[in-house]
Amino acid sequence: MQRLQQAAVKSDYAYKQTGYLSNNIGARLSGSPQAERSVQWVAEQMRKLGLDVRLQPCMVPHWVRGEEHGELIEWDGMAPGTTQKVFLTALGGSIATPAEGMTAEIVVVKDFDELACLGRDKIAGKIVLFNFKFDRELQASGFGGAAYGQAVQYRFGGAMAAARLGAVGVLVRSAGGSQNRLVHTGSMGYADGVTKIPGAAVSYEDAEKIAWLAATGKVKIKLTLTPQTLHDAPSFNVIADLKGSEKPDEVVIVSGHLDSWDLGSGAIDDGAGVAVAMSVPALIKQLGLKPKRTIRFIAWMNEENGGRGSAAYAAEQEKNIGNHFAALESDLGASHPLGFYFTGKPEMAAFFAPISKVLLAQGAAQVQLQAGGVGADIGPLTQRGVPSFAPWFNQQSYFNYHHTAADTFDKVDPREIAEVSSVMTVLAFGLANLEQPLPR
Amino acid sequence: MQRLQQAAVKSDYAYKQTGYLSNNIGARLSGSPQAERSVQWVAEQMRKLGLDVRLQPCMVPHWVRGEEHGELIEWDGMAPGTTQKVFLTALGGSIATPAEGMTAEIVVVKDFDELACLGRDKIAGKIVLFNFKFDRELQASGFGGAAYGQAVQYRFGGAMAAARLGAVGVLVRSAGGSQNRLVHTGSMGYADGVTKIPGAAVSYEDAEKIAWLAATGKVKIKLTLTPQTLHDAPSFNVIADLKGSEKPDEVVIVSGHLDSWDLGSGAIDDGAGVAVAMSVPALIKQLGLKPKRTIRFIAWMNEENGGRGSAAYAAEQEKNIGNHFAALESDLGASHPLGFYFTGKPEMAAFFAPISKVLLAQGAAQVQLQAGGVGADIGPLTQRGVPSFAPWFNQQSYFNYHHTAADTFDKVDPREIAEVSSVMTVLAFGLANLEQPLPR
Repeated sequence: MQRLQQAAVKSDYAYKQTGYLSNNIGARLSGSPQAERSVQWVAEQMRKLGLDVRLQPCMVPHWVRGEEHGELIEWDGMAPGTTQKVFLTALGGSIATPAEGMTAEIVVVKDFDELACLGRDKIAGKIVLFNFKFDRELQASGFGGAAYGQAVQYRFGGAMAAARLGAVGVLVRSAGGSQNRLVHTGSMGYADGVTKIPGAAVSYEDAEKIAWLAATGKVKIKLTLTPQTLHDAPSFNVIADLKGSEKPDEVVIVSGHLDSWDLGSGAIDDGAGVAVAMSVPALIKQLGLKPKRTIRFIAWMNEENGGRGSAAYAAEQEKNIGNHFAALESDLGASHPLGFYFTGKPEMAAFFAPISKVLLAQGAAQVQLQAGGVGADIGPLTQRGVPSFAPWFNQQSYFNYHHTAADTFDKVDPREIAEVSSVMTVLAFGLANLEQPLPR
Repeated sequence: MQRLQQAAVKSDYAYKQTGYLSNNIGARLSGSPQAERSVQWVAEQMRKLGLDVRLQPCMVPHWVRGEEHGELIEWDGMAPGTTQKVFLTALGGSIATPAEGMTAEIVVVKDFDELACLGRDKIAGKIVLFNFKFDRELQASGFGGAAYGQAVQYRFGGAMAAARLGAVGVLVRSAGGSQNRLVHTGSMGYADGVTKIPGAAVSYEDAEKIAWLAATGKVKIKLTLTPQTLHDAPSFNVIADLKGSEKPDEVVIVSGHLDSWDLGSGAIDDGAGVAVAMSVPALIKQLGLKPKRTIRFIAWMNEENGGRGSAAYAAEQEKNIGNHFAALESDLGASHPLGFYFTGKPEMAAFFAPISKVLLAQGAAQVQLQAGGVGADIGPLTQRGVPSFAPWFNQQSYFNYHHTAADTFDKVDPREIAEVSSVMTVLAFGLANLEQPLPR
């Protein structure tokens, strides 16, 4: 483990693979040609390492972003004949507006409670802007995920809540910490029996501006979104096994998700996670080591808007869950890791001491139990009792960029991603070679 | 002065006026309807204060941004049939590409020297990307203006240098510190006898991506820019005098520029400067004070792409320069002021002690001689010997936002802009009431 740790922190393997995925292939939304190409490329890279590679089929949602425009066309004090551009982006899964756009007054609310107070009279026929503020102070103190969790409720549930009161469209303040006119996409939800209305995220700045204008007069927007939901498309998880020398049937999964949102390049979400998972067998091979249990690399498909890849794997392995010794996933970027999270019996923490001792060399020795799970794709395995793990990151910048156009390769620091490789590799190898099974 | 200082730091006048200019009127590019409306609105606000208001005519360039699109259409590793969107914006004054766009290979250089080394053979027929890095470390240490000065040479001079070697277009890395896929516009230059080629700024991220891709293969872009340069348009400086009680012919100018670039809302560049200048007579009137010399408010037109307003004023006042006791301008945002800069005879610093003593209460007592001048619009007066002044700001964020879509009202902090109002008001009133003339 110590040799792996030392080799990993010097390696540029994960950095370069992230660069190829994000710069050369680019964004990889499920169903896109880039997603398809990334499947082939990752499989080829794993074959080059000499692993047993298979593509596990899954049908994925195929949502295609179209045109997206917003402009304010009426407000207090406007110069005659002018408009103000609204920076916005369609939320994933949104239906389209009419092709020529829809025009409506905006009603600004800060949260679900204020929406409910206004009631149907004030909402029907309007476009609701949920101006819920992303908590940058919470983020700055290291709890970016918690800040995101609060804000993302509006992205996912805003359209349903607004439509129940007769709104014709929904805008949400971007669920992220950036203040650079940057818009944040991501999945939105619809519910059976509730009218589907189009949904978009506006930038922090546009939310602030609209709220200012709405405080003194009527604000009207022309909103044009032309996304399409096509038929489900065939796609794949990429699965590659580095066979165990003593217990080949028992597997330790190392994984990230290959699909991404389409606005940026899918570098930190989650090209880096895939590349870090790729680096685990690469580093083990590089040192000529052999794990006792099988290390199974998985590049999951469709984490962002469906989870079809992880569902397909869980379904296939339903009767083989007992042989899944542990599952690792990296899906929160590639910044400096502090250690790792786990989900499972608290008493398993005692087994990690030798692993943490090795990771102490790079300041990544912290271990923390996370009750609710540590990754979306390994979630179905976690729920079935498989001990689950994820790197524990500094989260101060991740939620400024993921799901935005600024999720690009430059956000990855070569030294930091090497540190993440090290955490994943040492942890995976350590688990694969544990003498005793983990309590579960 | 002390009463003014105390009233200013509690005042929300400048904050609210900046909000109206940037949110309700919006961006104010020279020649636009918003610029025209802002002239009328500022004049009206000054009349409400009881000042003598006049509009000083000037003809301004009328450049109109059109469509602007960029996409990579060829690079190593691309998934068949895909493109990658390039975030870019036309530089101010750029000519258009053909309406259907131009397609060319990109040559990446880091600076003018590297361009010269490559020579005509490697440049002719290509689009040059100047990938000169904005120095964020220099910015972080308080010298944002110096970092900007280095980078902006490429924005202004890049097209000329590239065209001399036969390039068909030019891209420059955005001259700013943001790393949020934000593009920075601003004036570009053409030279007589050198072919005019279209110019655009790409985001930091796109510059990095293109440089990565160009390092391993050919990169082609399709670039579409459709700006138009229309006939010069009539516009105005807004000039409003608060008459001096003892020496009404001697004037102290307080000013900011009313025009802005068109991508954002012109909040920090320079709605805030105009609003702060407006606050000087507003605060003096509020306290019922009377300056001995005339305090002249000026909202300059066309600082960004021509300087026609300041030229018109300087020409009109050519024979009256001696009566210009001092000129103040605020054009670097509205963050916490540390004190003020001045240009003029070093020995005049001794006259400022009573002013700085009052500003010490808010931590703005620093005074520094700046040899080259302290503001573009008052520059012609400075050159003619008029003692010139500007607030001295913390410059750590200004150069992330100005000239971008993120130059919006939310970047203005109510407490900080009140501090700037205080510096301008105390300084202007103190100068207007000085017993002796400043050495010049």
